Amino acid sequence: MVVGGGFGGLQAVRGLRRAPVDVTLVDRRNFHLFQPLLYQVGTGALSAGEIASPLRGILKRQRNARVVLGEVSGFDLERRRVLVGERGIEYDTLVVATGAEHAYFGHDEWRSAAPGLKTVEDALEVRARILNAFEAAELERDPELRRAWLTFVVVGGGPTGVELAGQIAEIAHDTLRRDFRDIDPGSARIVLVEAAPRVLTGFPERLSARAAAALERLGVTPKLDRAVVNVDAHAVTVQTPDGLRERISARTAIWAAGVRASGLAGELADAGGASVDRAGRLVVGPDLTLPGHPEVMALGDMAQVLDTEARSQELPGVAPTAMQQGRYAAKAIRARLNGRERRPFRYVDKGNVATIGRLKAVMDLRGLRLSGVLAWLAYLFVHLFYLVGLQNRLLVMIRWTVSFLTRGRGARLITGEPAETGAARERIAA
Amino acid sequence: MVVGGGFGGLQAVRGLRRAPVDVTLVDRRNFHLFQPLLYQVGTGALSAGEIASPLRGILKRQRNARVVLGEVSGFDLERRRVLVGERGIEYDTLVVATGAEHAYFGHDEWRSAAPGLKTVEDALEVRARILNAFEAAELERDPELRRAWLTFVVVGGGPTGVELAGQIAEIAHDTLRRDFRDIDPGSARIVLVEAAPRVLTGFPERLSARAAAALERLGVTPKLDRAVVNVDAHAVTVQTPDGLRERISARTAIWAAGVRASGLAGELADAGGASVDRAGRLVVGPDLTLPGHPEVMALGDMAQVLDTEARSQELPGVAPTAMQQGRYAAKAIRARLNGRERRPFRYVDKGNVATIGRLKAVMDLRGLRLSGVLAWLAYLFVHLFYLVGLQNRLLVMIRWTVSFLTRGRGARLITGEPAETGAARERIAA
Repeated sequence: MVVGGGFGGLQAVRGLRRAPVDVTLVDRRNFHLFQPLLYQVGTGALSAGEIASPLRGILKRQRNARVVLGEVSGFDLERRRVLVGERGIEYDTLVVATGAEHAYFGHDEWRSAAPGLKTVEDALEVRARILNAFEAAELERDPELRRAWLTFVVVGGGPTGVELAGQIAEIAHDTLRRDFRDIDPGSARIVLVEAAPRVLTGFPERLSARAAAALERLGVTPKLDRAVVNVDAHAVTVQTPDGLRERISARTAIWAAGVRASGLAGELADAGGASVDRAGRLVVGPDLTLPGHPEVMALGDMAQVLDTEARSQELPGVAPTAMQQGRYAAKAIRARLNGRERRPFRYVDKGNVATIGRLKAVMDLRGLRLSGVLAWLAYLFVHLFYLVGLQNRLLVMIRWTVSFLTRGRGARLITGEPAETGAARERIAA
Repeated sequence: MVVGGGFGGLQAVRGLRRAPVDVTLVDRRNFHLFQPLLYQVGTGALSAGEIASPLRGILKRQRNARVVLGEVSGFDLERRRVLVGERGIEYDTLVVATGAEHAYFGHDEWRSAAPGLKTVEDALEVRARILNAFEAAELERDPELRRAWLTFVVVGGGPTGVELAGQIAEIAHDTLRRDFRDIDPGSARIVLVEAAPRVLTGFPERLSARAAAALERLGVTPKLDRAVVNVDAHAVTVQTPDGLRERISARTAIWAAGVRASGLAGELADAGGASVDRAGRLVVGPDLTLPGHPEVMALGDMAQVLDTEARSQELPGVAPTAMQQGRYAAKAIRARLNGRERRPFRYVDKGNVATIGRLKAVMDLRGLRLSGVLAWLAYLFVHLFYLVGLQNRLLVMIRWTVSFLTRGRGARLITGEPAETGAARERIAA
């Protein structure tokens, strides 16, 4: 049984397609989501449906796989049962890959003022807030409040934060340029807050510097070495290493900082007498199994993998890690069926790419460091290639082509129950 | 000022693009929605963003137009002011075109068990219910309950009801054919309930009969001459003209019957001392103006137009009617600016087309009656042609092509807050 239809879980299921086993995939959503492009849904460049594929559709031809739509509520490792809703489902081998969620450094009260980007609903909420902020600014007469509506703070200078800040800058300068009559969207201020001394800490320093310079040219103000100390509906407050505080008046804040492993990591640790690390990740052995439970594996963003000397392998929390681990899990299961031994999981660094905006990206490919148009093309290519389904690839290609040519953004819908959107706006404004 | 960015309102604004006037378009949503294809969003064939266009984007180059995002809460015809939220906006000429909403024949308690299809949110709710019903059936062990989960009742045999029933049949027989392991989606029962003795009463009788036959071949059971007398979470109860009642056990019902004019029709009638008809539509003169208020016009689904002899012109409640009236309104305003008199509005019947399914449609083009492939191609062509925006046309074309080739449906996402979807399911199941 596989729990979670993300990058890791899906690879595990697919990797077992020719094995003499029955696979049950449990997920609480009926679709696989291509999270690396979720920020484009959040900024109106893509529709949610274009980066999601129904799990049943993906697996319809894999006759040894079945999909169960349901929420896992507990594990009973003794009886080898997973509780899905009210129902217990038995397994011989269990693979859990339920990813991560946002972490607010113990300040969950910041969540309502600074939503993150993990689900389709998150993305539509972020999109509604960004677009509503421009609408509110257009109606606002008070210059100071208007300024606050036109200030956007993105917290976290990793790939998502950088991509998001770049996209908001392009919305303000290009997409909405002629859309308003009373405000100049180009006067919007986009602030990217990062606690480390540079953005994209996963990349070499030189590329971080290039990314920061590209962001500034786009109209983003990176505020480095600034830890967030408060977020509310009116402002984000940051602090420098020497304790100076700065309050940034902004009606829109988006969270792209810390993540924490899915709650099921803790459940599984409790059930199996294992431990979790500081980020809530389940600590698994070099073969991704739970200590003492060779039939239970955990992988992806919810797992922390030890190497053979029991030191932590610090693997990046990205899709390729989960995919490699998912494929490894399937291979390990097949090996066991054939009575072969499994070798420890070894991560292969396939390189790293982040986009900043139109024709701008940075790429680190095993020492080959690129920035600019070539990296940007590589970004587009890689993301189209890994997107599931030919139809989605075609749709995204068209969206990107039209956006590139017109500097437009076709999916600028403010959706959600109108009352809720209104309420959300009131909540922010209050 | 124009209130409402639907087919009528948008044509009125566009028709004034070269006139020496300032136009303010007020809408509570930030996008124009192509409602004729909303049923395809409801059945997972299209994403919502693909049939919607941001109003600001449509009007960005029309420099005499501005968009105000807000909810109209009242009219003051004496002082020529419209109340938008808390704010009064003055006008010289007012065009109101806020469409229609669902009517449950005085049984608003049916709404929760049988949602309709008027907004993007409605469509996503309908989609979630249809897909969740198959999921629930897969998990259900009791054969009778499973049967109820696999029964879908569409109330109303107009174009939307026929199109919806046909699409659900195709989902069951084609799209989901290999998706489940315990149920056969093809065993689903789709019932189309219509109070009149035939479907598509707006079409000639012969085409109605053809449509009904095509529906039956697709696996839809039309129940004609049946008035709905009750809808709840477990069943739809219908009654024959001679008073016999029949209870159809079904966990999913969709409302595609009566509509009622937008509430603003009544507000405007009260403000201007005018009257509304039984469907809540504002009764306007042959030139679409409010009696005694030549500066106020109402059009589209919210208006009932009298002819010069003060008899009601029974115009179909479709997009072409609203578009023609919107263009007429713009022309009338331009005529008045030039001191010319305005002639009464005259509706031009451009024909009528409804699709039933793959390669199946009926068309009535001023006496030319077609059914089958040709009508189906005409349907596709007309809808692509009127869809706003080149990008959306390309996206929908790809979706349709892929769906046609694979019998798939790319946008089968169950979205909405998971808790809500769950709650909705519980509500239905309760």
